[in-house]
Amino acid sequence: MHIFCLQENLKQALNITEKIIGKNLTLPILNNILLAIENNKLKVSSTNLEIGINCLVAGKIQKKGSITVPARLISDFVNNLPNKRIELRVKPNNQLELKCEKFKANIKGLSADDFPIIPKIKDNPLVKVKGDIFKNALAQVVDMASVSESRPEISGVYMYFNKTSIRLAATDSFRLAEKNLEINSNSSKDNKLGDQSVIVPQRTIHELVRILGEKEGSVDVVLSGNQILFDLGYSQIISRLIEGQYPDYQQIIPDKTTTQIVVNRGELINNIKIASLFSGKINDIRFSVNPKKSLIEISSKDADIGENKSKIEGKVEGKETAIIFNYRYLLDGLNNILSDKVIIGLNDGSKPVVIRPVGDPNYTYVVMPIKV
Amino acid sequence: MHIFCLQENLKQALNITEKIIGKNLTLPILNNILLAIENNKLKVSSTNLEIGINCLVAGKIQKKGSITVPARLISDFVNNLPNKRIELRVKPNNQLELKCEKFKANIKGLSADDFPIIPKIKDNPLVKVKGDIFKNALAQVVDMASVSESRPEISGVYMYFNKTSIRLAATDSFRLAEKNLEINSNSSKDNKLGDQSVIVPQRTIHELVRILGEKEGSVDVVLSGNQILFDLGYSQIISRLIEGQYPDYQQIIPDKTTTQIVVNRGELINNIKIASLFSGKINDIRFSVNPKKSLIEISSKDADIGENKSKIEGKVEGKETAIIFNYRYLLDGLNNILSDKVIIGLNDGSKPVVIRPVGDPNYTYVVMPIKV
Repeated sequence: MHIFCLQENLKQALNITEKIIGKNLTLPILNNILLAIENNKLKVSSTNLEIGINCLVAGKIQKKGSITVPARLISDFVNNLPNKRIELRVKPNNQLELKCEKFKANIKGLSADDFPIIPKIKDNPLVKVKGDIFKNALAQVVDMASVSESRPEISGVYMYFNKTSIRLAATDSFRLAEKNLEINSNSSKDNKLGDQSVIVPQRTIHELVRILGEKEGSVDVVLSGNQILFDLGYSQIISRLIEGQYPDYQQIIPDKTTTQIVVNRGELINNIKIASLFSGKINDIRFSVNPKKSLIEISSKDADIGENKSKIEGKVEGKETAIIFNYRYLLDGLNNILSDKVIIGLNDGSKPVVIRPVGDPNYTYVVMPIKV
Repeated sequence: MHIFCLQENLKQALNITEKIIGKNLTLPILNNILLAIENNKLKVSSTNLEIGINCLVAGKIQKKGSITVPARLISDFVNNLPNKRIELRVKPNNQLELKCEKFKANIKGLSADDFPIIPKIKDNPLVKVKGDIFKNALAQVVDMASVSESRPEISGVYMYFNKTSIRLAATDSFRLAEKNLEINSNSSKDNKLGDQSVIVPQRTIHELVRILGEKEGSVDVVLSGNQILFDLGYSQIISRLIEGQYPDYQQIIPDKTTTQIVVNRGELINNIKIASLFSGKINDIRFSVNPKKSLIEISSKDADIGENKSKIEGKVEGKETAIIFNYRYLLDGLNNILSDKVIIGLNDGSKPVVIRPVGDPNYTYVVMPIKV
């Protein structure tokens, strides 16, 4: 392999790909980045065996070939070079020579033959969606997925595709977020597959959100067997899917509530944070609402710390009630809502509570109260 | 105790004082902040038994008294309150009640009687110095002090006061920084003590730099027995001094060198960072300089990683030479120099190397090369 490319382009490809690489002691080649010439471009690839990322870099190809080199080393090296032309050349004994202006290095690598194969997916896209909209929608749900391994089917983000929308959901059984994304039906006209649903690992979605944050454009979503491909054009993420049946979560979203509160989101977050300082080991804080006074009172108490009480004004309709929350679950939902005001729907103290942005019917957050 | 004060003022005092408080399991009262009325102000104090910090907060005093409360809790609580009037009142059983608009809390505290005494220093100031200048000077040396406990006398910052200047120095025996600070001789006219020197713990200087960063003004330095007081007016830091004889470090600063290099500091830092990626376990990188070519070549090599070479143009005078450095020590010095260009003076490969900002004779950095 022998090519010339621009530092800026190689730097960006390395930054996108290296993030999924950890420190793998049993299979050292997983610490490496694969550099290979493919279709007259330099392909930069990484994998952790669950997710693979490819980036394409334009360059002047002198000679085909491939090599793998330690991800962190080449990334740190290239990041510190001036934004000029870089020459890369594979030397005998799996060495990669890099030259850029007055800098020259030889990096010890490993043969590309031993690098795990990242599946190639050639199927037609299921759907095309705008990158920034997709990113914001995914970011609103991804953190609610379960981190526990005991129920793998809820450790990922649920995606349900039909002709006009994508529905995203994630839950850890204590709280749930759902986002509906309207899509231009033209963009899925080639879709002869009908409705489809998949469960995508949380890590994959985190990486996708990260990579989508860096450029504009659209994303093709492609399914193939137990793999999913997010194709951003300049970059591809290929991931395995999680097998299993996603729970029928929609049945737990209450369609009627006996008390409704409309309140300023920023103020509510602040009062919850203050209450959290005095909450006990189970992170419990207490809401009590009174329609007559248009007030929400938030309180918390711990025998070792002390106690706290605060009030916020809001619109309260329906029954007077009191309910105990885990403040962390409340904050996770409120921080993922983008509107100034939220509407909170309560039933009695043991039934799921629903929180929605005022003016946006497409996001729903459900949280289980703490039973007393 | 019963007082009213502004949230902003109390918040600032808590933020200044709480930073030195760690998590002390053997003496829980050290996790607390002392609140006490003194000279018609609220005094907020913290101590870790080595350093004590006092801050004064203006307020309307209704009733004298004192209490201690967990530092982190009161600080987090007050930080999240609106910038309005806060009412503080000591209740029976060492409880502190706080009220601010629609927020109310009771914090469980401990009696002020059990709080360690922070020494009161009434001596005349040795010197008065401008806060921002003092802060920048201290920041340029403080990180070079030794972190090892084996030689306590070099674990602090050396300060030598005379009528016209303060000399600051710190070393860990591998490298050394010295800063001279000219002071207005009027400001020390009351000083009847003559020349004095002390060794101040590194932690104290870090706290002083932090607190000086927040406001303008001047600092009175006061010595009393084995204590030093830095009086900022709105805040005081009182610290024990380190006993012992500071080494006669000036003898190791070379007054003549056989090779001198003048080079751009930012470029040099970048090339050292790149070389560091390929350095071995002892962080070794190699400089070789040739007066005929006006070039500095920096290289590094490790059998497992690979090798690297880069060149920078600079003015080189004197003998051709090569020398091995620990790159961390070089970067520490270069990062504390503020000028665009630096002058590096070398002797042969085992003698101390001196680095100075071009145009500023008041800062000197000395680093020992790695002997080969």
